[in-house]
Amino acid sequence: MSHFRDEIAEQPEAASRLLQQSRGTVAAIGARIRESRPRGYVIAARGSSDHAALYAKYLFGVRNRALVALAAPSLFTHYARPPDLEGQCVIGISQSGASPDVVSVLEEARRQGALTIAISNDAESPLGQAAEYVLTLGTGQERSVPASKTYTASLLALALISQAVDEDAEFAAALDMVPRAMAKALELDSDLEKLVVPLTGTRVIVLGRGFNFSTAEELALKLMETSYVMARAWSVADFEHGPIAVVEAGIPIVVVDGGGAVATSMVSIRDRVGAKGCPVVQLIDGEIAKVDPSTTVQIASGLPEELTPISLAVLAQLLANRVAVSRGFNPDSPREIHKVTRTW
Amino acid sequence: MSHFRDEIAEQPEAASRLLQQSRGTVAAIGARIRESRPRGYVIAARGSSDHAALYAKYLFGVRNRALVALAAPSLFTHYARPPDLEGQCVIGISQSGASPDVVSVLEEARRQGALTIAISNDAESPLGQAAEYVLTLGTGQERSVPASKTYTASLLALALISQAVDEDAEFAAALDMVPRAMAKALELDSDLEKLVVPLTGTRVIVLGRGFNFSTAEELALKLMETSYVMARAWSVADFEHGPIAVVEAGIPIVVVDGGGAVATSMVSIRDRVGAKGCPVVQLIDGEIAKVDPSTTVQIASGLPEELTPISLAVLAQLLANRVAVSRGFNPDSPREIHKVTRTW
Repeated sequence: MSHFRDEIAEQPEAASRLLQQSRGTVAAIGARIRESRPRGYVIAARGSSDHAALYAKYLFGVRNRALVALAAPSLFTHYARPPDLEGQCVIGISQSGASPDVVSVLEEARRQGALTIAISNDAESPLGQAAEYVLTLGTGQERSVPASKTYTASLLALALISQAVDEDAEFAAALDMVPRAMAKALELDSDLEKLVVPLTGTRVIVLGRGFNFSTAEELALKLMETSYVMARAWSVADFEHGPIAVVEAGIPIVVVDGGGAVATSMVSIRDRVGAKGCPVVQLIDGEIAKVDPSTTVQIASGLPEELTPISLAVLAQLLANRVAVSRGFNPDSPREIHKVTRTW
Repeated sequence: MSHFRDEIAEQPEAASRLLQQSRGTVAAIGARIRESRPRGYVIAARGSSDHAALYAKYLFGVRNRALVALAAPSLFTHYARPPDLEGQCVIGISQSGASPDVVSVLEEARRQGALTIAISNDAESPLGQAAEYVLTLGTGQERSVPASKTYTASLLALALISQAVDEDAEFAAALDMVPRAMAKALELDSDLEKLVVPLTGTRVIVLGRGFNFSTAEELALKLMETSYVMARAWSVADFEHGPIAVVEAGIPIVVVDGGGAVATSMVSIRDRVGAKGCPVVQLIDGEIAKVDPSTTVQIASGLPEELTPISLAVLAQLLANRVAVSRGFNPDSPREIHKVTRTW
């Protein structure tokens, strides 16, 4: 077994630990945000962490009615012309906390007097030191280069912050269900084998929308990192505004669907690309109409759509792992990349 | 000749016309923005227009020190939970002005009292009617489904707004040079033929950074729409945080480089992927070190980096057109898409 596969399996426990150990910090962050009433959120991140930022764009939007901007780090580094961040809550997400460009966004934000939060697996990292508040993921060391447990822990950390800002009993109960939902996803590992064959070519398209656009991006990245498949994710509406032209019979398409408000949109695109002769496979959490069980892996986690990116990320990781293994690759050590990437 | 190729050629004239005819509207928008001092900008767009929004993220950042958030339209439509837009300047960009999701962002913004601006080729469109100010592109009808002249006109419109907010004599002079820079790009059409062969496979990676990340995205979309190549663009730093693992000898890579602050970053990635055995072709505007003339098309437009996305977009369009023609496709009418896409 690889570190990647081991760390995927550690996620229910890591999530339980985060739920327990972060209470004090999350309460302090929530109180501070409620008091300072930020104008909006700015999130700086790279790689998988950037997909967590994308999740926050929808989560903070839907739950907190907050505007989220994803930072362009080069404005802070190469161009040395950072935007005005007055009154913003600026969040840096990084497993290692060591990428200089993400750190520089937080340093500048703090210089400007913005509220700063680091979400990292290393509280002592440069990112942790740059921020006023540090929410430590506490997953234990992640040895695999492709992230798994630090990714879902980052999603959960963001959900905890959202909840601390706007508390809601139903969402609180749902958060407590997350470890169990992850465990349910893990039980489906062998069922995912039936989806592997179509994904072993050179190209894959992954479609999501809303909350699970982040999951689609994360699956595409995992397929690239572990299996060297040229995978590309789109949000359905963006896909229909042009890129859909590339679709031709035979190009495999993965549909990631957490149900909820965008489910009709996902079913509609699934049927449209299926009619073009594309092999379509589905990762689903929730109740979706007319599913073909031979090409679908479906959890019924009971999570609300807002939290399905966590359960579906576990399925996505397991799937990428199986594609890598079937192609004979070791998912732990992708060529060309290292655990800590230092970009400027 | 196709409409696409004809419309590419119309761009210097369209840009000249926009520079002349928009003066009054741009001055009014600039005065209003200076007076209302927005907290930041929110931009709603799809397809090529979304790449114009990406350009604005860097342009308004560097020139106006303004924070730009790209809207997630589904928050306004499917989720019906729009974020708080108080004090924002909300810009909708759409050639047709007819996509309901982009219109709904502007309608909600106006309901919330935000300053709203439509950038469209059709002032009478739903988008034009939803916004307080309309900056009409005035390119004349665009018949080709893949956008060309409306894309560069949208970039120029954004640059005019940026200039109206923070005036600068040097940038004013540079704006007046845009039509001539486009004409210079057009003169290089036949020179682009030497770059076509590596791009006629099934996969292409396009790299840019900063201002020209937008150009990289636009070239990738144009290759998909006109030539059905699965093309994917990355900003260099994001690419190095994982996706670079997919690189293997033989995968063609296009580097889009407008010089300036990110030029060293572009040269470094060019040499890194070249060393992996990838055919690398370059589109350059500016003075770049150690260029291989057999795989590079280079304009020396004299434009500052901030405006090279306009000249380089013309090269990108011409290149996509040549790839389509060499593969025997009519670039005007991509399969599966229409001139007006109505997503919700």
